[in-house]
Amino acid sequence: MPAPLIAIYPGSFDPPTNGHLDLIARGSQLVDQLIVAVLENTQKQPLFPVPERVDMLKHVIASYPNVEVDCFQGLLVDYAAQRNARVILRGIRAISDYETELQMAMLNRRMRPDIETIFLMASEQHSFLSSRMVKEIATLGGDVSSFVPEFVWKSLHGKLVGNPCKPPRK
Amino acid sequence: MPAPLIAIYPGSFDPPTNGHLDLIARGSQLVDQLIVAVLENTQKQPLFPVPERVDMLKHVIASYPNVEVDCFQGLLVDYAAQRNARVILRGIRAISDYETELQMAMLNRRMRPDIETIFLMASEQHSFLSSRMVKEIATLGGDVSSFVPEFVWKSLHGKLVGNPCKPPRK
Amino acid sequence: MPAPLIAIYPGSFDPPTNGHLDLIARGSQLVDQLIVAVLENTQKQPLFPVPERVDMLKHVIASYPNVEVDCFQGLLVDYAAQRNARVILRGIRAISDYETELQMAMLNRRMRPDIETIFLMASEQHSFLSSRMVKEIATLGGDVSSFVPEFVWKSLHGKLVGNPCKPPRK
Amino acid sequence: MPAPLIAIYPGSFDPPTNGHLDLIARGSQLVDQLIVAVLENTQKQPLFPVPERVDMLKHVIASYPNVEVDCFQGLLVDYAAQRNARVILRGIRAISDYETELQMAMLNRRMRPDIETIFLMASEQHSFLSSRMVKEIATLGGDVSSFVPEFVWKSLHGKLVGNPCKPPRK
Amino acid sequence: MPAPLIAIYPGSFDPPTNGHLDLIARGSQLVDQLIVAVLENTQKQPLFPVPERVDMLKHVIASYPNVEVDCFQGLLVDYAAQRNARVILRGIRAISDYETELQMAMLNRRMRPDIETIFLMASEQHSFLSSRMVKEIATLGGDVSSFVPEFVWKSLHGKLVGNPCKPPRK
Amino acid sequence: MPAPLIAIYPGSFDPPTNGHLDLIARGSQLVDQLIVAVLENTQKQPLFPVPERVDMLKHVIASYPNVEVDCFQGLLVDYAAQRNARVILRGIRAISDYETELQMAMLNRRMRPDIETIFLMASEQHSFLSSRMVKEIATLGGDVSSFVPEFVWKSLHGKLVGNPCKPPRK
Repeated sequence: MPAPLIAIYPGSFDPPTNGHLDLIARGSQLVDQLIVAVLENTQKQPLFPVPERVDMLKHVIASYPNVEVDCFQGLLVDYAAQRNARVILRGIRAISDYETELQMAMLNRRMRPDIETIFLMASEQHSFLSSRMVKEIATLGGDVSSFVPEFVWKSLHGKLVGNPCKPPRK
Repeated sequence: MPAPLIAIYPGSFDPPTNGHLDLIARGSQLVDQLIVAVLENTQKQPLFPVPERVDMLKHVIASYPNVEVDCFQGLLVDYAAQRNARVILRGIRAISDYETELQMAMLNRRMRPDIETIFLMASEQHSFLSSRMVKEIATLGGDVSSFVPEFVWKSLHGKLVGNPCKPPRK
Repeated sequence: MPAPLIAIYPGSFDPPTNGHLDLIARGSQLVDQLIVAVLENTQKQPLFPVPERVDMLKHVIASYPNVEVDCFQGLLVDYAAQRNARVILRGIRAISDYETELQMAMLNRRMRPDIETIFLMASEQHSFLSSRMVKEIATLGGDVSSFVPEFVWKSLHGKLVGNPCKPPRK
Repeated sequence: MPAPLIAIYPGSFDPPTNGHLDLIARGSQLVDQLIVAVLENTQKQPLFPVPERVDMLKHVIASYPNVEVDCFQGLLVDYAAQRNARVILRGIRAISDYETELQMAMLNRRMRPDIETIFLMASEQHSFLSSRMVKEIATLGGDVSSFVPEFVWKSLHGKLVGNPCKPPRK
Repeated sequence: MPAPLIAIYPGSFDPPTNGHLDLIARGSQLVDQLIVAVLENTQKQPLFPVPERVDMLKHVIASYPNVEVDCFQGLLVDYAAQRNARVILRGIRAISDYETELQMAMLNRRMRPDIETIFLMASEQHSFLSSRMVKEIATLGGDVSSFVPEFVWKSLHGKLVGNPCKPPRK
Repeated sequence: MPAPLIAIYPGSFDPPTNGHLDLIARGSQLVDQLIVAVLENTQKQPLFPVPERVDMLKHVIASYPNVEVDCFQGLLVDYAAQRNARVILRGIRAISDYETELQMAMLNRRMRPDIETIFLMASEQHSFLSSRMVKEIATLGGDVSSFVPEFVWKSLHGKLVGNPCKPPRK
């Protein structure tokens, strides 16, 4: 019996968007176990602290039996090796993504040739979505209810009190 | 009689360049009214405060009867709706522009499907111009007199005393 | 009273797709008159002869009062000038489009600086559509009913007898 | 027990290169069964007829127990469905690949949402390789022995008699 | 005394444009000898036969003492080696150029690591020019007098009798 | 006797990578003298102060007789003119590089038309390398010994005490 295929889906998820959720749903069909791994990046100033991001992700993936949420520090390939993952899963939305992703995939392969990076294309309706854009629009009072899961929308709402997100347009 | 076609040309304009001016000249031919709208971005540290940017723009567009200058905060599409503008005008210089612009246009359309973003290509001789580059060159003592309107050049000169822009090469 | 703003939307339209239709709908909101102009390219071997393409387009634009269909030979800018059009309308789907479009827009501006090319981004759900792909899929027996207007689908069906398009999936 | 994960790796393989071989080796680690599927494209004039391409591929994949070679006509997604494959495997070398691949992946998903396209990045040393380039260089008398498997090199040699490939540089 | 630096500037030059001329002028400043080399591509159907292209080039480079014109068959790197050239000179206009050029430069380096490819960016005013576009516009009766040297314009005029280029716009 | 051809290879080199070294080796073959020039950018927070970067570069270029190391402030084209350099040498790794490089080359040419920028493509095995990535990986405890010269690796090691680079994998 071959070893189960474990994949890491790494990211900042600050906050998770519908695009992330779509990738998790599709990626979880391809592997035995999918680990959604929140990167603890000590340099960037996040909107949500890591535990809140982990919570939001746990909430939105609850219905996928072979998906778990974790967080990690340090090199992605070291974390992947430690979790016995042979695959890193990444989504690509656009050309600029593609270049950065290509660079990282090649560096990672140089460091750990036994770990493979595989890419899925973002679905059309999410191709323009990013956590950064969601935060920017929400901060400016825009309605982001169609860009993030409802649970995340409520967390964003709570986070931005004083400059609250608009309620969804009817 | 149909409603007049009003367009917003949004940007930071810190400072306005000849590329912006070219786009205003060409865009103003296509619509009934063109509103050049300075974005008040509280996060970025600008070289010129918003009122000075508005002043410089007012000076350089003086000869266009159907162009006005304004500034705004918050979401661009909300501002456009409030001004009864059906069109957002954007210039594209390069691929990297294109990707960001595409992303914003799609997000804006999702939020307000009744507002259309139209793109003009930068003229060849301005295809490499950006406000950021102009500031960087002027700060390093370079001659930017062929990149910005004369009025802007003088303002830059005043702003960078102690490290003044070079006088134009003869 | 200013001269009405007339725009040309040129293309091969072999056959028209839902992406073309979307662009016509959106573009017609921006100008006084929109001329959908089929290019008679004597070098390419088309699937539909020009009169059939004109017919299909006339059928699908019937509900737009300010849109007409025409065909032309020779240089686009000469045709535009002859029709008193000040604007060429083009859609952009992807980076590779962007480059070719930029090149043509710059050449056209060099030949006729008084005619402006404006670009609209394809809607997300049409960003991957092209006449070439539609023909290829239909030829291979694929279902293209969600990619083209129904009238075009029937024409494609008739054209590809012996290797007919599949009926739409239920 | 879940259904085995079957993937199709489609292409022209006219001829197979070391880049294809690298992708097969890496892709075969990710799935239960990998079907290398030669597209019978009746429109293009190939250098090698389909049976010869199948033979070459069979020869070079002999050591991979979970890889088989096949050929197909018609729509890729229909062939994939018929083979019970849930995955289409594609390699990306460069931006221009990326655009075409994105377009095809989105069309395929629209036609068959249950079939997922996954992408692997070409290894650095193969990022510039293509069958077209190999044929062009061999036709011009260049040494392609480091670009294709030895078995393919010999076949190319035989095919281009009168204008033979150079023997490998020592 | 080091060996003189000889560079090859290869191309189809069917016909030479002002963009080619600009590159020759700038490239000739960087090397001891520049060889403009017309590729004899037996597969493409050219507008001008090779000897006419060589003639046109000889005419337009007459004032550059360290530039000569030649033609070649076979592999570019073999021709370069035979001419003792250590450098291949190429111009880049756009992203799509960049990709193809990168691929060819890497293949050439793999075949002959001692020959270096260097790139110059096209000047802004020529960034949209290509021989293909010039031919297409001239064939459609457009004025290409600002895109090609006068001598080339006259040759084009003679070549396209019956569908002559327009005289230059005054 | 013509003036010697002097080229500037400008950069941050924070720290120098094997990619930089490869470009120096190849570029030094093309010109009479190559000046590797460290940009003193007062705005960015470097890992290595300029004198240390100059030292590391001096160490790694010791075997190239026609290469020297220098540092500069202010505009690159002014520095180049002051050093009598007619050429600026730049490496390109990827599309995103290409765009920025194109913009800078055009601005530089506008300011000093007598100074030419020439580009070399990064070698395949260095196409994904950047100083930023090297620093990030080393900071996270990754092994960068195959990305930088040994002398640089030791300096990185010393710099990141408390979070030391891993020793090279055996």
